[in-house]
Amino acid sequence: MVEFAAAADVDAVFHALADRTRRDVVEKLRGGEASVSALAGQHPMSLAAFVKHLAVLESAGLVLSTKKGRTRWCRLAPAALRPAEEWMRVHGELWSGRLDALERHLEEHP
Amino acid sequence: MVEFAAAADVDAVFHALADRTRRDVVEKLRGGEASVSALAGQHPMSLAAFVKHLAVLESAGLVLSTKKGRTRWCRLAPAALRPAEEWMRVHGELWSGRLDALERHLEEHP
Repeated sequence: MVEFAAAADVDAVFHALADRTRRDVVEKLRGGEASVSALAGQHPMSLAAFVKHLAVLESAGLVLSTKKGRTRWCRLAPAALRPAEEWMRVHGELWSGRLDALERHLEEHP
Repeated sequence: MVEFAAAADVDAVFHALADRTRRDVVEKLRGGEASVSALAGQHPMSLAAFVKHLAVLESAGLVLSTKKGRTRWCRLAPAALRPAEEWMRVHGELWSGRLDALERHLEEHP
């Protein structure tokens, strides 16, 4: 069953992904949690500017952060990508083509 | 071979998809070309506001338009979705999971 997400959630996820810095953070966090300062150190901008990007990711539900002592740690909440992934699954041509090929294969080789 | 798109192209496609009106236009145009006025008529906003959404889609390369007589026709250029789809393919969990399942199936049932 396809579960349709609220349009506002899909908006927020696509908006969060529409920036290279924010996509880099998602890619980096797939490897596990990281501190804000470690993440920020990889990007040529002020910490204040970087923290705004993190806020967009947190607002879309893609990143969760917790403070331990003096350090704020970020981790990915990859399930939050699903509304946007579902949209791509239904409407994208590349993905549709691949899943069509899978269905054909399964029909021919049950 | 995965062909990596320029980050600016991926930004533009995700930005274009981060709005329900623009996603509706993409969904509608999957069925074939449509006039600007027919597309605009489905959305509760001024024609000027709607045309701005179309401009975002055209700027991302997702929609092409041509004028025939007094009517401007729009059509989808679905291949322009690919940079964003590729990103999802590599980094999304839902899609990765499905393709992993396909690979396992193909290995087990060659």
